[in-house]
Amino acid sequence: MTPVRKPAREGAGSAFAPSRRSAVAPFVAMDVMRAALEAEAAGQLVIHMEVGQPGAPAPKPVLAAAAEAVRDGRLGYTEALGLRALRARIARHYADAYGVEVDARRVAVTTGSSAGFNLAFLAAFDAGDRVALAAPGYPAYRNILSALGLEVVEVPTTMETRHAITPEMLARVHAATPLAGLLVASPANPSGTMMTPAALGALVGAAEGMGIRFVSDEIYHGLVYEGAAETALHFSDSAIVVNSFSKYYCMTGWRIGWLVLPEDLARPVERLAQSLYISPPDLSQRAAIAAFDAREELEAVKAGYAANRALLLDRLPALGFEDHFPVDGAFYVYASVRRFANDSSAFAGRMLAEAGVAATPGVDFDRERGHGFMRFSFAGRHEDMVEAAERLARWLI
Amino acid sequence: MTPVRKPAREGAGSAFAPSRRSAVAPFVAMDVMRAALEAEAAGQLVIHMEVGQPGAPAPKPVLAAAAEAVRDGRLGYTEALGLRALRARIARHYADAYGVEVDARRVAVTTGSSAGFNLAFLAAFDAGDRVALAAPGYPAYRNILSALGLEVVEVPTTMETRHAITPEMLARVHAATPLAGLLVASPANPSGTMMTPAALGALVGAAEGMGIRFVSDEIYHGLVYEGAAETALHFSDSAIVVNSFSKYYCMTGWRIGWLVLPEDLARPVERLAQSLYISPPDLSQRAAIAAFDAREELEAVKAGYAANRALLLDRLPALGFEDHFPVDGAFYVYASVRRFANDSSAFAGRMLAEAGVAATPGVDFDRERGHGFMRFSFAGRHEDMVEAAERLARWLI
Repeated sequence: MTPVRKPAREGAGSAFAPSRRSAVAPFVAMDVMRAALEAEAAGQLVIHMEVGQPGAPAPKPVLAAAAEAVRDGRLGYTEALGLRALRARIARHYADAYGVEVDARRVAVTTGSSAGFNLAFLAAFDAGDRVALAAPGYPAYRNILSALGLEVVEVPTTMETRHAITPEMLARVHAATPLAGLLVASPANPSGTMMTPAALGALVGAAEGMGIRFVSDEIYHGLVYEGAAETALHFSDSAIVVNSFSKYYCMTGWRIGWLVLPEDLARPVERLAQSLYISPPDLSQRAAIAAFDAREELEAVKAGYAANRALLLDRLPALGFEDHFPVDGAFYVYASVRRFANDSSAFAGRMLAEAGVAATPGVDFDRERGHGFMRFSFAGRHEDMVEAAERLARWLI
Repeated sequence: MTPVRKPAREGAGSAFAPSRRSAVAPFVAMDVMRAALEAEAAGQLVIHMEVGQPGAPAPKPVLAAAAEAVRDGRLGYTEALGLRALRARIARHYADAYGVEVDARRVAVTTGSSAGFNLAFLAAFDAGDRVALAAPGYPAYRNILSALGLEVVEVPTTMETRHAITPEMLARVHAATPLAGLLVASPANPSGTMMTPAALGALVGAAEGMGIRFVSDEIYHGLVYEGAAETALHFSDSAIVVNSFSKYYCMTGWRIGWLVLPEDLARPVERLAQSLYISPPDLSQRAAIAAFDAREELEAVKAGYAANRALLLDRLPALGFEDHFPVDGAFYVYASVRRFANDSSAFAGRMLAEAGVAATPGVDFDRERGHGFMRFSFAGRHEDMVEAAERLARWLI
């Protein structure tokens, strides 16, 4: 398998050290969350715009199903790929929402999209394989890939292509450094910027034509304000789709998501999941089945995000946060802070300490250019967004 | 990091294939569980002895805390290493149960011990490192290690050392193939066989003297019928301890466990956990805090296991299941089926189909010698154990 080499930490009495591969970057948003919690514990009132987490609780049918599961009390291991009823319900969602037929046997329920990424990368790629992704992008992609021995090929994007990777860009990268995979999020994190169905279809086709496995992160589907989100399954049976109940369905802390897999990856993913996860949390699975019956409630939550979005797209530029990316979907504004600072991490620290507003510096998402950007999540309550804008105004002006 | 190599799946139009590393062995116990569920769906009444899962629901204080969390409704991401209150409560458990001082900052709450193993292996070992473990042993160890690019060195054990690895055996293996790590479970799975505190201490000392990181799987602590379980923390500050709420605390489906880490691994594990898991399930964390207050209820469950154990240790040998390992702890009888079959997988299939008793073939635990063994879990209800013994008697005699 991997080359045999002498352990570096040999020898009697030698100190043990962390592995080299544990030297992944921190997920700065999580570190900011910790700092924000510490500030709150010290008595400060903090507005949370650092984590991509809905301010609303899980919808009522989900909570009712969870309460029922707790009353039942018998929460056990499920099959590694998840409860069959949930897999079937997720499959039906593809017919309802996209008009795409998906066999439930291709659905793997996962412990959040985090587990989905881990399983997808392990099942599709071997150590040393190269996987391309857009910068800026979700930092956990890079960190999971690199912890698994995969080589991350970041493709810087600009407004010229609306921050998307194009078939031409992909061909150029592939010619220089042959790729095994391409990971695309649309709507994207940190920006919310989305590809058109046509652009997505062209990219899926181009990738597969080059023998590059397409991994489609669709966890912000459902949260779209401009345009329409299309699933990669519409264009391909070889694409791997990653999705989650965390965002649209307001179930972050429940750690529940899913994969739609090409047929030949279902059993490899099952084998890996049996050992790496045993099964997703039973209660979260039983509750998630009910999430699809909460559309009205969830659309009301989304309407709140739309109001938050309108507020921030009005106020943030006026305060001097420039050049925000198109906020087609998700619940983030990714904007420049160059008017105020060269180092968005230091700026984020001051903003938390002095204005009581927590947001995530761009270095989390773009190691090259992120020092000039900040990501504001508007998934919180509207009154918090109003208060955040006022605090920033008092602080900056 | 890992050596650059040309992807194998290059070229226009080529079929995509699963990765080589996804070719891990299935966790046969999970496959048996699926077959058992299918038999039940087809109307058969199956006694479940295949999965290491308590028949009792989570204890009442846990369910009450879970119900409260559902009523609260706001289940979100926690810090990646878990809720501070839970980390502190786990730390206190070490003082209470073992008289060992543990700083709460060394405790990482994990999504079951599955996540604990994954994080421990990633944080402590690099691809290509060799990790030794006893055969027979828990198959997920092997599968997680190999999915992470680590080389598994299985050390066959016999009754001569009471199925434990000794310092002498370790030195011999290390001299032949230098090891970076040693993983020991006591009580062990599939056998329940336990090391004495003295034997454990000697092995920890020997491993560390050779520069071999000690990973101690203590998930069956609390479930001990003969002797006393000691934590590796008693002997070392460099050992990594893996534990879980699944077994003694009856919380399998909640997917919640913990690590106790050497100080210098806490931050690497936090960074990895931020990206690989974000956080453990919030509800399970809030509920798990209450698990430590349920000792009376859990001791009653354990008394049930003790009765099951007595029954099976009486009946199984009488039925012809020979040479069972010492059942010091846990809730398994690992016994020979050579009187009935040379292939325990085929035997397990027939036993499920014809007797309606599901148990796990030994190949899951020992690829060399497991074809002659079967693991029976006695974590279920006593009446089920009685019924299983009767069914086996009718079927075999």
